Amino acid sequence: MVSITAWQGLVDARVKPGHDAEFLTGFAMPDTAFSLHPQLAADTIPVGDLALTRVLLANDANYPWLILVPRRASVTELIDLADNDRLDLMRETDAAARTLKSITACDKLNVAALGNVVAQLHVHVIGRRHGDKAWPKPVWGAAPPTAYGPAVRDGFIKALRRGLGLAGT
Amino acid sequence: MVSITAWQGLVDARVKPGHDAEFLTGFAMPDTAFSLHPQLAADTIPVGDLALTRVLLANDANYPWLILVPRRASVTELIDLADNDRLDLMRETDAAARTLKSITACDKLNVAALGNVVAQLHVHVIGRRHGDKAWPKPVWGAAPPTAYGPAVRDGFIKALRRGLGLAGT
Repeated sequence: MVSITAWQGLVDARVKPGHDAEFLTGFAMPDTAFSLHPQLAADTIPVGDLALTRVLLANDANYPWLILVPRRASVTELIDLADNDRLDLMRETDAAARTLKSITACDKLNVAALGNVVAQLHVHVIGRRHGDKAWPKPVWGAAPPTAYGPAVRDGFIKALRRGLGLAGT
Repeated sequence: MVSITAWQGLVDARVKPGHDAEFLTGFAMPDTAFSLHPQLAADTIPVGDLALTRVLLANDANYPWLILVPRRASVTELIDLADNDRLDLMRETDAAARTLKSITACDKLNVAALGNVVAQLHVHVIGRRHGDKAWPKPVWGAAPPTAYGPAVRDGFIKALRRGLGLAGT
């Protein structure tokens, strides 16, 4: 059990500049009412939980594509998040983007919170390559998803977990 | 001339929680090498400059659509930004989203940094309505742009400037 005072201290420490490394192991208030939207669950493979978000790999081998879902109930817009959650989401989005770029050596990153079809707040972090199936258009609706084979999927998940600091959990 | 020490103090103050109001008038290091990509200039109407970003209105009356461009040279990815710039961009993106929602009473916000066609880092903040020309698909490439008439354009720009705290500048 972390007291409110200690928790506030952790939050204050986390929002100071130069403390990027802390957020992955930071403390986030749990939201027991959160449950992942069934469509997001159906289209993805779980990677792991960061302080705020559940990290998912889109089961589409056409593009390296992560989806980050804040574990908060009933949030649909970025501007609905509490300030500290918003900051965590920014940092976790950036960590996902760096990890994806580092693993895949993609040419461009696409980062987007759309939510027109699935309203539950989720952020897409997609590694794009010149010549991928949708390039230079956005990926949504561009090509039918191609499921990963088990070996590639497992190797990718392992590399993602290592890159996000989730390897030992 | 602001000394480095004073500047750091301003930066430190800006990244504390609960100081959201400060960023609009905050101090940002100028980047004299910045120039707006000609394609972004051609497709938009300038709204004004926040601490970090140039705010543009896409000249497409199909959707209320802002584009925020950090005034930094040679930056293409969110993760290329310095920590303080990244934080400013998050806050200015949220301010743009709140302003757009407040003015247009849109049903959903779409926020995205893609940059596949124009590499200069820019963030789209788009107000979506159920039944708009692309709904529920993303807007890019969905319908030919429809230029604003002068009266609607000028009224919208005025409301945006007021919402973003740029009215008196």
